[in-house]
Amino acid sequence: MSKRRIQSLVNKLEENQLDSMLVTTPANVYYLSNYLTDPHERVVAVYVSSTHDPVLILPAMEAEDARNAGWNYSMIDYHDHENPWELFQSFLNNVGKIPETLGVEEDNLTLGRYNSIQGILPESTIKSAQELLSTLRVIKTDKEYELLKRAAELADFGVQTGINALKEGISELEVIATIEYELKKQGVQAMSFSTMVLFGDKTASPHGTPGTAKLQKGDMVLFDLGVIYEGYCSDITRTVAFQSITVEQEKIYNTVLEGQLKAIEASKLGTAVGNIDKAARDHIDSSGFGNYFNHRIGHGLGLETHEYPSLHGNNSLPLQKGMCYTIEPGIYVPKTAGVRIEDMIFMTSEGAQVLTKFPKELQIIN
Amino acid sequence: MSKRRIQSLVNKLEENQLDSMLVTTPANVYYLSNYLTDPHERVVAVYVSSTHDPVLILPAMEAEDARNAGWNYSMIDYHDHENPWELFQSFLNNVGKIPETLGVEEDNLTLGRYNSIQGILPESTIKSAQELLSTLRVIKTDKEYELLKRAAELADFGVQTGINALKEGISELEVIATIEYELKKQGVQAMSFSTMVLFGDKTASPHGTPGTAKLQKGDMVLFDLGVIYEGYCSDITRTVAFQSITVEQEKIYNTVLEGQLKAIEASKLGTAVGNIDKAARDHIDSSGFGNYFNHRIGHGLGLETHEYPSLHGNNSLPLQKGMCYTIEPGIYVPKTAGVRIEDMIFMTSEGAQVLTKFPKELQIIN
Repeated sequence: MSKRRIQSLVNKLEENQLDSMLVTTPANVYYLSNYLTDPHERVVAVYVSSTHDPVLILPAMEAEDARNAGWNYSMIDYHDHENPWELFQSFLNNVGKIPETLGVEEDNLTLGRYNSIQGILPESTIKSAQELLSTLRVIKTDKEYELLKRAAELADFGVQTGINALKEGISELEVIATIEYELKKQGVQAMSFSTMVLFGDKTASPHGTPGTAKLQKGDMVLFDLGVIYEGYCSDITRTVAFQSITVEQEKIYNTVLEGQLKAIEASKLGTAVGNIDKAARDHIDSSGFGNYFNHRIGHGLGLETHEYPSLHGNNSLPLQKGMCYTIEPGIYVPKTAGVRIEDMIFMTSEGAQVLTKFPKELQIIN
Repeated sequence: MSKRRIQSLVNKLEENQLDSMLVTTPANVYYLSNYLTDPHERVVAVYVSSTHDPVLILPAMEAEDARNAGWNYSMIDYHDHENPWELFQSFLNNVGKIPETLGVEEDNLTLGRYNSIQGILPESTIKSAQELLSTLRVIKTDKEYELLKRAAELADFGVQTGINALKEGISELEVIATIEYELKKQGVQAMSFSTMVLFGDKTASPHGTPGTAKLQKGDMVLFDLGVIYEGYCSDITRTVAFQSITVEQEKIYNTVLEGQLKAIEASKLGTAVGNIDKAARDHIDSSGFGNYFNHRIGHGLGLETHEYPSLHGNNSLPLQKGMCYTIEPGIYVPKTAGVRIEDMIFMTSEGAQVLTKFPKELQIIN
């Protein structure tokens, strides 16, 4: 639990004319409570008020885990046959403080839960307040920097492990199995998203699904993976060639790499994040591959693999010290090749630092 | 893509006085489109109307994948800098059919998206319609039965692999690494949830987190795992003892097993699902462990690990042919032991069939 973070949120509440906030995004619950859980369909929430101590709402079977994680304020722990919102209503009646204005996370709170909350608080005004925690979390502390750096090192190790495993006839899933096995042996509890290893034509799909395809000479191989290290996510992409490469594929590779380096170069304190996207996109456009770069340049990351901000071309948010995000241009030409190169970037007062260190010059693996 | 499923949904729309429905739950999108994706924060949706063909809304970079998966109606494919709801509005203006009543999934649709939809459709009445697809999906076809059965066999294999890996000094994460490695070598693309392997005191936490704890004589070992096989999820839990067991632990084990068998016995066509919970709970209560069984007896499963219905004691939904669900009582006594035994059950016209076959009699592993 972090008293400092809860206090920061209370300060934000006051700035935003809110009495209180119901925090339901699992990463935000973790940020405030130090309790990390995947609630599936069950309700887990932190209720933060400017007038009294916070309370954690969670399934009864997790109450012990939350205490062990350090939560030492009240809890509303409910059983599966109980309605957590009714218990929350009783809690509010007991503390004698019904909020006039309640902030909620509109990107997480479902319509069904919104209706339940409005049902127990018919007199309260419910307001969208997603940005309160986003704007707190976007600026990372030195401690968070260290965790992200370690997560990035483990991602580098994952790519190296995957490249070491490449041999003719191995399948995408076998390479993934090897990468995850070696990472778990390093103490990694979970990957930050489904590990992607794609061979040959499948690299041309930005969100392709690995399968039992077998590696053969001339395949491009794309790795996109990350780990969760003490709650913090990493994310790296590298693309290599297996045994041989065509002139066209090499041109695609070099265009992506040049675009990626230009985007890193554009990462300066105070610049709009949209300029990072523009730096890579302009280069790729002028090389004639513009139609094949069909996604944004990157995304924030921290407690979530994809978090605020979104680094698309129209985003005018200025880069600040303490931000962490990916730069990951790609060119996907059907039947020819897909290449993506992704690094994690951390903004320091001295400028952009690249946390993922795996080499980026074209590698032809034998 | 399934024309039959889309037609079934259109029939449901008419029964429920809805013009159309916006389907946003990834499993429901897959059910209707045959396109399986994890959209993270991006919008992926199927819009189904009673008056014109459906349309799939998705990121531009996934359009090719959706076509390859078999979607051959229209698509609204948007880039990251575009607003998908504005494109959807243009689409509706083009087809000339603004819905009067639009169904949405209130357990998935976020408040932010609800507001966006209401913003582009100010004259439309938006209604909760979560149950439409839940009540379609809850009755599985013979084809779905075969996929669930295969997923269950792979879960059995996972438990056997984990037990084979047990040896003094191995860590929880190393056992998980071995299980997942062997499953991926069998062609499994993804686990249906984070694999859980817990040793000793940690078994007493129903949602515990595996780590680097090392196995020692006298530990109970709990495995909870499942795979996704062609989109369908499995889920099994087994608990074993390593080298020795105390009298108290053995009593807990046998109480859970007896409760589990009673719940399976209570699974009869037409009975309320709440009775399944009651059958196990009454037995555990009468054995004096009632306070240590702090979750429901189980949940539906299919395209999602946890799906409709929730098998808690107050649920009066009658069991029907084609339903698939878990039965997973547990007793968690801090500092003594946690034991959970979970099977997947499929209701056939001849009664409950247990899909997970791994033996349940107490095993002391040497």
